[in-house]
Amino acid sequence: MMDTTVQNIVVEKVKTSKIDQIDFDNLSFGSVFTDHMLVCDYKNGAWEIPKIIPYQPITLDPSAKIFHYGQSIFEGMKAYKDSNNDVWLFRPLDNQKRLNISAKRMAIPELPEEYFMEGLKTLLKLEKKWIPQSEGSSLYIRPFIFASGKGFHASPADEYKFIIACAPSGSYFSGKVKVLIEETYSRSANGGVGFAKAGGNYAGQFYPTQLAVKKGYQQVIWTDDNTHEYIEEAGAMNIFVRINDTLITGPTSDRILDGITRKSIITIAEDEGIPVEIRKITVSEVVEASKKGILKEMFGAGTAAVVSPISGFGHKNMNYDLPELESSYASLLKKRITDIQYNKTEDKFGWRYKV
Amino acid sequence: MMDTTVQNIVVEKVKTSKIDQIDFDNLSFGSVFTDHMLVCDYKNGAWEIPKIIPYQPITLDPSAKIFHYGQSIFEGMKAYKDSNNDVWLFRPLDNQKRLNISAKRMAIPELPEEYFMEGLKTLLKLEKKWIPQSEGSSLYIRPFIFASGKGFHASPADEYKFIIACAPSGSYFSGKVKVLIEETYSRSANGGVGFAKAGGNYAGQFYPTQLAVKKGYQQVIWTDDNTHEYIEEAGAMNIFVRINDTLITGPTSDRILDGITRKSIITIAEDEGIPVEIRKITVSEVVEASKKGILKEMFGAGTAAVVSPISGFGHKNMNYDLPELESSYASLLKKRITDIQYNKTEDKFGWRYKV
Ligand SMILES: Cc1ncc(COP(=O)(O)O)c(C=O)c1O
Ligand SMILES: Cc1ncc(COP(=O)(O)O)c(C=O)c1O
Repeated sequence: MMDTTVQNIVVEKVKTSKIDQIDFDNLSFGSVFTDHMLVCDYKNGAWEIPKIIPYQPITLDPSAKIFHYGQSIFEGMKAYKDSNNDVWLFRPLDNQKRLNISAKRMAIPELPEEYFMEGLKTLLKLEKKWIPQSEGSSLYIRPFIFASGKGFHASPADEYKFIIACAPSGSYFSGKVKVLIEETYSRSANGGVGFAKAGGNYAGQFYPTQLAVKKGYQQVIWTDDNTHEYIEEAGAMNIFVRINDTLITGPTSDRILDGITRKSIITIAEDEGIPVEIRKITVSEVVEASKKGILKEMFGAGTAAVVSPISGFGHKNMNYDLPELESSYASLLKKRITDIQYNKTEDKFGWRYKV
Repeated sequence: MMDTTVQNIVVEKVKTSKIDQIDFDNLSFGSVFTDHMLVCDYKNGAWEIPKIIPYQPITLDPSAKIFHYGQSIFEGMKAYKDSNNDVWLFRPLDNQKRLNISAKRMAIPELPEEYFMEGLKTLLKLEKKWIPQSEGSSLYIRPFIFASGKGFHASPADEYKFIIACAPSGSYFSGKVKVLIEETYSRSANGGVGFAKAGGNYAGQFYPTQLAVKKGYQQVIWTDDNTHEYIEEAGAMNIFVRINDTLITGPTSDRILDGITRKSIITIAEDEGIPVEIRKITVSEVVEASKKGILKEMFGAGTAAVVSPISGFGHKNMNYDLPELESSYASLLKKRITDIQYNKTEDKFGWRYKV
């Protein structure tokens, strides 16, 4: 067994911080980056000890496999600052485990848990000033691994880079979104890589999303590739549907990402006494429910947007509007989950993680 | 309309060539690179004029979208040198067109034909000495485009790089391969990106291929993701099956790459008077044909390996051997296509392209 305890992560600090150039009152999502990043190389069959260096460009051979064969995976998480200036993560070990689940499917060597967790904590302590405190803002954290090894042979690389970069961010979406239920394109195959946070899954969504945007929608609801009759995900989020007072979400599968927000919402909803069903959702039942007036809500769930309410959907050239509710599950669940994340309430499920 | 005529591609030459360090008698596939590369940037909504520079590392921001969202495509082609020292390409315009088909599906801006063709010719003239002349060797050419634009938002990048790099190469495979007909994993979805040469398609194949290798096979035969009953591709090649004297290959679809070798083989086979069928191939008919002794050949077809004969296949824990034939379609077709590529014979279909 390799010893993966990390005693001292070497930290090379920037000479001058660029934090004063950042307008923290007008943050967009994921477009300004903190002073430092964590870097960890896989070479000669092993992950080396991670180190922290100034945020800087990466230099790669033109034959590096990332450019040719899409061998890359990532995670998305957030650090929250409470009113005491304490810093919190939300279920970070689940991101660490999921990174390795993605790694396995993409033939990338799994990363030791210690390197991820100790690396992340050391980086966040160093970047503490960069974590916004204002409502709805947080430090978006992007751990990722890509193939840096060389060669035009279509086979796994022999070298990889694991990096954690951070971006102080405002909220992801503004307002409700109108979605198109996809009838032609799909994001993942049975036996494919849809359950992994593999880079290629996202690029494959861009074009169908552009087509939906041209038709006046903001996002695509992905359906199964065989019948387009089962609702699977909402853009890069898991999807929830409320029919009457029952909250329904599809089961995870090899086509669907096992979202941390999704499973937290299921737990909170059950805790609230909301009837929850985890089962396949058909497009026809959603359309029927809408026609009967019992389709009360639809929303996406994911780290970036937390809960993203849907105002209406298109399907087979018809548009269906969702009602405006005074007290929606979406806003109740969003408040409960963000209150836990920002340490504004008791953490009865043990999800908060102090940095 | 943008003017995309390229008058003079600026060439920055290396000070000293590294060609003397290369052992041209022992070339592997795609692991040594020539002195120069073509680079073309997409910025501010347009492709800039390409330029040729010394082969050198690429520098990118850690937030470049290639690292996160797999927005990348590529092509694979070869330059052949004949006994007169003349240099030839094989149906290069088909690669140029296919690059743009891939680009569209991956929300990458399409590249002007002139930039591709003039860029390629200028580069090959400069690298002429690097093109091997020995039997079975050639200059493998890798045109590729990736997202260099920055940001953690999962949306198409605003900047891209198109590069052509070249690697003098020996043959891809040595000998016949044993393949496993896939029953669990799959490479592409209906409505997905399987018909595009998108990076992520290849990384997704690595893990299932590793599992097949552990079981004693060299490659996976991909089947449809829904029933695993239709034979679609052989690794990163198109597949041909010979039952009795009929040559069969599957139709192209949104799950299958429209291979240039495949379509050339179809034309040559018909020219030879071989009965050719383009139709769906089921796993059961292949298994049945093998049991009856009428499954004569199976082979993969693609630029890198040209024709790659299969010696046997595994399916549902059974192994099936293919016969050793004295005169196989595989060797006949390989000879006819390579004779055209290396200018050893008349080019009756007009496929050769002089550089
Ligand atoms: C495809 C997809 N589905 C769902 C999610 C939601 O997962 P999580 O709640 O863990 O962020 C993500 C990531 O944000 C995703 O990329
Ligand atoms: C998935 C796949 N199928 C088939 C082929 C064969 O295409 P071509 O004959 O144009 O090289 C390739 C590329 O080589 C490929 O990547």
